[in-house]
Amino acid sequence: MSGKVWLVGAGPGAADLITVRGARILAKADVVLYDALVTPEILALCRSADLISVGKRSGQRSTAQSLINQQLVASAFLYERVVRLKGGDPMLFGRADEEMRALEQANISFEVVPGVTTAFAAAASIKQPLTKRGVARNVAFFTSTTGREEPDQAALPECDTLIQYMGGQEAIDTAHRLIAHGKSPNTPVIVIENVSRKDESVSRLSLGEMMHGLSTGEGPVLVMIGEALRSRSDI
Amino acid sequence: MSGKVWLVGAGPGAADLITVRGARILAKADVVLYDALVTPEILALCRSADLISVGKRSGQRSTAQSLINQQLVASAFLYERVVRLKGGDPMLFGRADEEMRALEQANISFEVVPGVTTAFAAAASIKQPLTKRGVARNVAFFTSTTGREEPDQAALPECDTLIQYMGGQEAIDTAHRLIAHGKSPNTPVIVIENVSRKDESVSRLSLGEMMHGLSTGEGPVLVMIGEALRSRSDI
Repeated sequence: MSGKVWLVGAGPGAADLITVRGARILAKADVVLYDALVTPEILALCRSADLISVGKRSGQRSTAQSLINQQLVASAFLYERVVRLKGGDPMLFGRADEEMRALEQANISFEVVPGVTTAFAAAASIKQPLTKRGVARNVAFFTSTTGREEPDQAALPECDTLIQYMGGQEAIDTAHRLIAHGKSPNTPVIVIENVSRKDESVSRLSLGEMMHGLSTGEGPVLVMIGEALRSRSDI
Repeated sequence: MSGKVWLVGAGPGAADLITVRGARILAKADVVLYDALVTPEILALCRSADLISVGKRSGQRSTAQSLINQQLVASAFLYERVVRLKGGDPMLFGRADEEMRALEQANISFEVVPGVTTAFAAAASIKQPLTKRGVARNVAFFTSTTGREEPDQAALPECDTLIQYMGGQEAIDTAHRLIAHGKSPNTPVIVIENVSRKDESVSRLSLGEMMHGLSTGEGPVLVMIGEALRSRSDI
């Protein structure tokens, strides 16, 4: 007999931006396998769990996905209540498909608990909506499009508001490509690092300025692009 | 002196899918102005607040946005802790820009508390990710594109995974337009009504089948389109 697994979205980082359900499951967990993006404040909600870091961060020492899948399955045979804790929401850029497949193949029952994705927490923090009547009627989330096994130069989505997760290192490339595709260099950009955490920092610039790059720190960087991000005081 | 306003995301509907912060603010609120999409389970978290419905639903009796703005400002002069409670996340399809402008013009201080948007709760419920390695690297959220003041036939976003909020009535139009733009009729579609609630219902079909319409009930309908939504057992 195996235990049960919950894939839980930790939300953006602040301890009280996880869902009530997520917090309750963390409090009862026997083991928690967590990503590098999960904050100490969130891990503090795990009252009695063994904590196992399976973090992946670009450019840093990382655990291969297949190894994470194995650890997850193995944990379900060692513990009764297993949580796989992911930053933001587990179903967005989370490799959840591979983990769910591994669980199904091992006949382990699991549930998924959604979370607040960083983009919404960022919009809340800067008090600017992602959609805006007459200005931006849709929004796309995307992530790294370079440095992959299969680089795809045509992969930038076409949408009014564009949100690039972990977009700091590729900012110059993103800006050049969007301007080449017809976006105005005057398009507002907001860059937020460490969303919802004590050391959150916000920069405002234009897409044209972003062609010269960003100066960001070590934390996760969200790049938000589009007319919906123009300051209300500028309109 | 005015009170303070919190624009709070209620999440998809289940009482425990609101954030811990959101639940705490609701419990302390003196008045809550809520949308039609907010569920009774969530309203039950308001322990001592006056509850005011300012719901808008397509095709039903509705409150004009300017009137909601006025009510919100007026409430902040009558109550100390005012919550403007919106289904899902307040910064996505929520007319939040107009409400924040009204609050700023009246010099009323406010905060925004993000929420789990319905699409993530739907993905959790059906256990299928919105992005998938090698299959779907980006996702777009959009809503009604017809029946507006400024109909825009070119407004469908270009993205691997497409999520249409309140998409039930326009399903035939959406399917025709996507197929005309080159999406395969074989593309998987998942339609979810009343996400995260007791009466949640899920239908699976293809984009080609959606050209003949959907049979949905009275609840809010989310239409999810793309290869990431193909059942794992079908691959």
